[in-house]
Amino acid sequence: MTESKQQQIQHLANIFIQSMPFSRLLQLELEQLSSQSTVIYLPWQQQLVGNPIQQILHGGVISAVLDTVGGLMAAAAFVERQDFDSVTQMQDGLAKLGTIDMRTDYLRPGRGEKFYASAEPIRLGNKVCVCRMELHNEKDVKIAYGTGTYLFG
Amino acid sequence: MTESKQQQIQHLANIFIQSMPFSRLLQLELEQLSSQSTVIYLPWQQQLVGNPIQQILHGGVISAVLDTVGGLMAAAAFVERQDFDSVTQMQDGLAKLGTIDMRTDYLRPGRGEKFYASAEPIRLGNKVCVCRMELHNEKDVKIAYGTGTYLFG
Amino acid sequence: MTESKQQQIQHLANIFIQSMPFSRLLQLELEQLSSQSTVIYLPWQQQLVGNPIQQILHGGVISAVLDTVGGLMAAAAFVERQDFDSVTQMQDGLAKLGTIDMRTDYLRPGRGEKFYASAEPIRLGNKVCVCRMELHNEKDVKIAYGTGTYLFG
Amino acid sequence: MTESKQQQIQHLANIFIQSMPFSRLLQLELEQLSSQSTVIYLPWQQQLVGNPIQQILHGGVISAVLDTVGGLMAAAAFVERQDFDSVTQMQDGLAKLGTIDMRTDYLRPGRGEKFYASAEPIRLGNKVCVCRMELHNEKDVKIAYGTGTYLFG
Repeated sequence: MTESKQQQIQHLANIFIQSMPFSRLLQLELEQLSSQSTVIYLPWQQQLVGNPIQQILHGGVISAVLDTVGGLMAAAAFVERQDFDSVTQMQDGLAKLGTIDMRTDYLRPGRGEKFYASAEPIRLGNKVCVCRMELHNEKDVKIAYGTGTYLFG
Repeated sequence: MTESKQQQIQHLANIFIQSMPFSRLLQLELEQLSSQSTVIYLPWQQQLVGNPIQQILHGGVISAVLDTVGGLMAAAAFVERQDFDSVTQMQDGLAKLGTIDMRTDYLRPGRGEKFYASAEPIRLGNKVCVCRMELHNEKDVKIAYGTGTYLFG
Repeated sequence: MTESKQQQIQHLANIFIQSMPFSRLLQLELEQLSSQSTVIYLPWQQQLVGNPIQQILHGGVISAVLDTVGGLMAAAAFVERQDFDSVTQMQDGLAKLGTIDMRTDYLRPGRGEKFYASAEPIRLGNKVCVCRMELHNEKDVKIAYGTGTYLFG
Repeated sequence: MTESKQQQIQHLANIFIQSMPFSRLLQLELEQLSSQSTVIYLPWQQQLVGNPIQQILHGGVISAVLDTVGGLMAAAAFVERQDFDSVTQMQDGLAKLGTIDMRTDYLRPGRGEKFYASAEPIRLGNKVCVCRMELHNEKDVKIAYGTGTYLFG
């Protein structure tokens, strides 16, 4: 991969995290980014609670984080395959990338201080990418699994 | 259904919407609530945007709203079947209700001013409830479908 | 649609039902075929039983029938959009059509004499088609729902 | 675990494989059976073909095998947790075990001579069991992944 391609992939973090208002609201941060394995994390915030008595994350927050890490990994895979002349051209290409469908499996209540979400590709073609995702807390307690299908538009 | 049971069901709106910090962050509102059909809505908010150029809802917000309406309908079905002596007893029973798994199908970009999410039961037993959910905007443009499996803990 | 295109769509029944060994084993029959709504049916066979005491269809048979009707409808939608010069060219195009993922929701035990499966499109693009499917028996008892994502290869 | 409990678990192979007409039609065989990891295999059969030109398994066959291995593992987990006095009592308990929902992800065409399907639990409670399943051929080529939710009735 050319240095320019690596720069393009790193630029994805700006697009998926810093530039997305909802990712900023969740205070998502990038940990690792490649087409083979991508990791982001979510710090605990009181406003993301679903059940106020149990003090656990809302299930929708968990799905949102899993969808984001899967989409980010799919985008890295897409950029790696395509020849973009510039970041602008890359952004145009990515505008058409989207989630087709996603399944979330909730395993345990979302308790913790910091939640790590990772994605790995299970099917990667010219038109679609399917990922498996996983979310655990800072004590490595598994909280949710996901499977997402993404379209290279 | 006794008047008291209807009051219990209406009380669910407090639990799922007013008392949940994340539901308040989304500014969710109740439109209709029963064990056969439940509808909530989400007003547009800039901070819920996924793609800032296209100005569309983040997919995670869509999943969160679908999960909330499905869970609310499952809770209404649960309350209808159980004999709770008091709201406190009902809250204890509901503490164990949770989403087991959920699928979201994204159909169109989340554009609009107001987003209505509805749920209807497709399987209702003593232990689990499966719902189909749907989200459309104020012009009745379908944006996403969902299917969720909920456990009566 | 030209008469030739209608003939091509009708030819799909041969491909998905008569030419597929597993569809013949299931004794599937076509009831209706278009890109908007497709219906097939499965006659009861003792060798398709999952639970011999309850005498109900194996869940895998139900998923297989739902996947077949969804794939057939996706193929009809694909043929309607493409310009194929001949049936041979159409068959080449269809060789790349495949299921990416599918969810089945089992609602009731598979009891009956004849099982009707239908599909309708919920998302239809140039690269993928997403369908909702449903299976009921001859007394209109709903047995299963499905959602499938198909790739136009 | 008492020896009797191990015998009960081994007896599950009879119930899920030898006694189920559809499992016999598929010629399924047991490789390994426990509540932590279960493996079965499917020999190639011409009548299970979906696409006769490509000579690959029908997607419905793949889903059926994944559902069977997931259900078998869920049954082993169920038997391990319950105290059954006899095989008859165990069979009564199992009569209510069923698949609630299942997702299949198709990764590659189903080519090969022998297909191994395995399951592992990702969520195990008193009422439901959620498993991840996987199918590969004799050359360890991954063909499909699955996720299934099973109810202890």
